[in-house]
Amino acid sequence: MGEFELLARIRERLPAPGPRVRIGSGDDAAVTVPGGATATSVDALVDGVHFRLDRTPLRSVGHKALAAGLSDLAAMGAEPGEAYLVLGVPTGVTEEDALELLEGALALAKETGTTIAGGDVTRAPALSVAVTAVGHAASEGALVSRAGAKAGDLVAVTGSLGGAAAGLLLLERPDLAGRAGPEAEAEARRRQLEPHPRLAAGMALARAGATAMIDISDGLGADAGHVAERSSVAVAIDAQRLPLDAAAEAVAAAAGEDPLVLAASGGEDYELLACVPREVVDQALRGVEDSGTTLTVIGEVGPGSGVSIRLASGRLMKPSGFDQLQR
Amino acid sequence: MGEFELLARIRERLPAPGPRVRIGSGDDAAVTVPGGATATSVDALVDGVHFRLDRTPLRSVGHKALAAGLSDLAAMGAEPGEAYLVLGVPTGVTEEDALELLEGALALAKETGTTIAGGDVTRAPALSVAVTAVGHAASEGALVSRAGAKAGDLVAVTGSLGGAAAGLLLLERPDLAGRAGPEAEAEARRRQLEPHPRLAAGMALARAGATAMIDISDGLGADAGHVAERSSVAVAIDAQRLPLDAAAEAVAAAAGEDPLVLAASGGEDYELLACVPREVVDQALRGVEDSGTTLTVIGEVGPGSGVSIRLASGRLMKPSGFDQLQR
Repeated sequence: MGEFELLARIRERLPAPGPRVRIGSGDDAAVTVPGGATATSVDALVDGVHFRLDRTPLRSVGHKALAAGLSDLAAMGAEPGEAYLVLGVPTGVTEEDALELLEGALALAKETGTTIAGGDVTRAPALSVAVTAVGHAASEGALVSRAGAKAGDLVAVTGSLGGAAAGLLLLERPDLAGRAGPEAEAEARRRQLEPHPRLAAGMALARAGATAMIDISDGLGADAGHVAERSSVAVAIDAQRLPLDAAAEAVAAAAGEDPLVLAASGGEDYELLACVPREVVDQALRGVEDSGTTLTVIGEVGPGSGVSIRLASGRLMKPSGFDQLQR
Repeated sequence: MGEFELLARIRERLPAPGPRVRIGSGDDAAVTVPGGATATSVDALVDGVHFRLDRTPLRSVGHKALAAGLSDLAAMGAEPGEAYLVLGVPTGVTEEDALELLEGALALAKETGTTIAGGDVTRAPALSVAVTAVGHAASEGALVSRAGAKAGDLVAVTGSLGGAAAGLLLLERPDLAGRAGPEAEAEARRRQLEPHPRLAAGMALARAGATAMIDISDGLGADAGHVAERSSVAVAIDAQRLPLDAAAEAVAAAAGEDPLVLAASGGEDYELLACVPREVVDQALRGVEDSGTTLTVIGEVGPGSGVSIRLASGRLMKPSGFDQLQR
């Protein structure tokens, strides 16, 4: 595979750049005129670590790599702007394969209004995609960090939880195929392979006055822990209030797993967890609903540190139920 | 190796962020207030492809990965701002190793006024470093692309050529050790392992009115070809005028190689090639000298396409003498 030739073929496929982009792919660097404040995130997916190529369509690899980067922007309340892709291509992955992966990223870029403004292709021992995602806001104050949660805030999540973990279960255990029903299985796989970042919901939450946000990539418990740590607060979650994904419940039932554990520890749902002052919760709920998804209050912020998840029995979930396993 | 623990140890080592950075490493995304125009470049170095870990100090890997990204900014005439590092870490590379690599990048970041504003660490089958480098300028017009060269412009390069290729020769042929003298060998190795991006020279050339610039990473012939293609011009280079690196001449003599070929095809010198209108050449020469290096006129831009390199004999260098080998 010729690196220059592939780059040229990739460039042919890129749509016209967005309004802030003055020079896109093909120069030493992309040139943009950002204005206001920018949010920049870097992330990488590696075959054998974050996905397995033998059971993941190439389009999904491209989609998911970009989705993970854009989800970080959603968690800041930023408007998506530009993305840059570094593709590591091993022997055996053809030029057509690389272009198929790119198509997955391009489709999501189009859907979200993101410009692929640059990138690089290199040989590598395993297929890998590193994504730099750049988002924009009118000012620094319009972006929401992990660090602003205050005791008394409510804790809420967008959409539903556990679907991506259920999809991973299905990929890892072919014996489950057909046992949760075709619709639930298709939905769970979609949540695992082609997550959709909550960009509009993130901007709505930022506008409503969320004090802290994070996207649920490592798992609800682990990500709530990041917010608790950076905000120097305690986060108390009520397990009964978690918005369980219907597909996750069906797959968990078929697999004999606890759907709560999938929802609390599974990760990769790419929903948003937001801390919201009580007086603006109604505004946040309306804003997120207008963006096309739901917002569910699942707990509250208090003084102290760490995360607790209270079960229906009144007991606390064991940390093994929501701590992220080291990947 | 725990990803979170290593990230925490890396964060401890990061110096205070630069003036445009409002939130650095540790949130979903870094937040900056860029103003003006930005130049963004992505690049990756992979063990076994771009370097060999068994003969490259870890500090040099970190240094060179960042240098390659900053060199792209130099080629736009941008002031360095922020960099983001994605580290792929294989089994056998320890946390201490990863921190040593980071130290190489941090030392160059400090020297150049660059803030390491974010990053990611992941397991990977080979050591890899992907760098996103972001530079700044007062306005879009202050940045120099590859596309603006005009017939009649002079072609000039900063510093000297061939040193990095000579260093690579020494790394690949241990039998040459001691045959070119300790000083030349140390200098050639330094040029290969720890290149210094020409940031101040790039800004001086942009201020002087350079019409097109590129950094010499693929090799003089190949990179001049990129400018010729993007600017729709022909670039004619006079081989006798190339500023040969003294260390490259010594190593080439010891190896029985033609130093001209090292200078024209070797790549990785991370010097700048600039196209400069004749009426501002004096200003460009002074500006680059004030930045601490030299600028040498090596040819001119004409109508047409492609690159030619004329030898002392009057013949043209064969394309094999300056075309980049596919890496």
